[in-house]
Amino acid sequence: MPRYKMIVEYDGTSYVGWQIQDNGHSVQAAMQKAILKLTGETVSVRGAGRTDSGVHAWGQTVHTDLSREWVPYKLRNAVNAYLMTASEKVSVIDVSLVDETFDARFSAIKRHYLYRILNRPSPLALEANRAWWVSKPLDHEAMHAAAQMLVGHHDFTTFRSTHCQAKSPVRTLDRLDVTRSGDLIEIRASAQSFLHNQIRSFAGTLKIAGQGKVTPEDVRAALEARDRKRCGPVAPPDGLYFMKVDYPDDRQDG
Amino acid sequence: MPRYKMIVEYDGTSYVGWQIQDNGHSVQAAMQKAILKLTGETVSVRGAGRTDSGVHAWGQTVHTDLSREWVPYKLRNAVNAYLMTASEKVSVIDVSLVDETFDARFSAIKRHYLYRILNRPSPLALEANRAWWVSKPLDHEAMHAAAQMLVGHHDFTTFRSTHCQAKSPVRTLDRLDVTRSGDLIEIRASAQSFLHNQIRSFAGTLKIAGQGKVTPEDVRAALEARDRKRCGPVAPPDGLYFMKVDYPDDRQDG
Repeated sequence: MPRYKMIVEYDGTSYVGWQIQDNGHSVQAAMQKAILKLTGETVSVRGAGRTDSGVHAWGQTVHTDLSREWVPYKLRNAVNAYLMTASEKVSVIDVSLVDETFDARFSAIKRHYLYRILNRPSPLALEANRAWWVSKPLDHEAMHAAAQMLVGHHDFTTFRSTHCQAKSPVRTLDRLDVTRSGDLIEIRASAQSFLHNQIRSFAGTLKIAGQGKVTPEDVRAALEARDRKRCGPVAPPDGLYFMKVDYPDDRQDG
Repeated sequence: MPRYKMIVEYDGTSYVGWQIQDNGHSVQAAMQKAILKLTGETVSVRGAGRTDSGVHAWGQTVHTDLSREWVPYKLRNAVNAYLMTASEKVSVIDVSLVDETFDARFSAIKRHYLYRILNRPSPLALEANRAWWVSKPLDHEAMHAAAQMLVGHHDFTTFRSTHCQAKSPVRTLDRLDVTRSGDLIEIRASAQSFLHNQIRSFAGTLKIAGQGKVTPEDVRAALEARDRKRCGPVAPPDGLYFMKVDYPDDRQDG
């Protein structure tokens, strides 16, 4: 059966997250339902990352197998038509035909996330549900310095949810950059893979580093303690965006 | 009584517009209600621009008189607290004490608006209600060339709503620039004042210019015809943002 790779954007606010769950509507269910209506096939749509409820995506990447061969842009438009009819806040940005060995999750060589903080005294109106509102001033240079303590190959037990199902807490964090433009603080994180709640745990700890409550050395010590209780607050999902996934064959299947 | 100038941000999606109306909830009513709860005073909050339902603001500017003298940042925080309690999508960004001759509407020397078009085949998810989705490719250079036909001192009868209440259809348009960054086309408009639906009328006409359906000469002829029937489609409100208002005394009251 032909396998399709899809790049998917969604507003995570009203979903229980990417993955199908008993307690509400998921992005995965929205996509599988749209494909069922289009093709009559009950398919499994597999995502590169299991984003939590409230987490957004500009570039979640998924794969699915369909019995029929489609012209990619026609498949994109047809799936989008069914998503729109169902008033889903999900949009397929790109479709490509890929080799049957391609797996959105296991073939990924790098994942890129963005965490957005709006740092200003006034509450969010246009950016409500699109960023974390932090009213007290944050020092983004202190945040960046603390972030550099986390980059590299480490046991990230301190920075993963106690519900994390990954066998190993060891990951290689390639990038954790903090920049500021006006009121907007952006945290950009890249790694081959992340643990459950890892970026939101980073964002919460970097926030208290930006308030001067912890130093970069404190963050290093918290990491080295491998103790979940040493993590700062977990940042809310609203500010987190799944931006992009890199694959080894990006040039061929684009 | 002390007069306060306020800069206000709102998500216009769920409001009938800036101005109080019989048919639903307005941003003006939301602000007056918050101030009533805070001070016990029934005030009139006067805006620099009457944005329509669905139109957003990053920098609507208003004034109101209060009997008590407030430290400006405390007034900002107190009004915001009542707006948040009422779940309004409205946020006061800045408050300053101004001279009693200041009038948000009549003292304005320039108003700045932004119109956003997302020009891509896929529907909007994260940008739903935040931009106009145009799926067919637009030539932004053709749009900019057409826009330049509208800049200057003109009778804008063609580009105002038949419901426009302004006595004169003559205005001076200082700027109408079209730029593109990826899928996002931005139209930036500046003038001392605008007519009702003027920018959405511009955006609709520029869109058909971007599709090659009308030339810059056609746009000039439509302007010169002073005939509302010569206007292109009126663009939806979702893409329009009231960005900023300039006043002669901006340095003193900031």
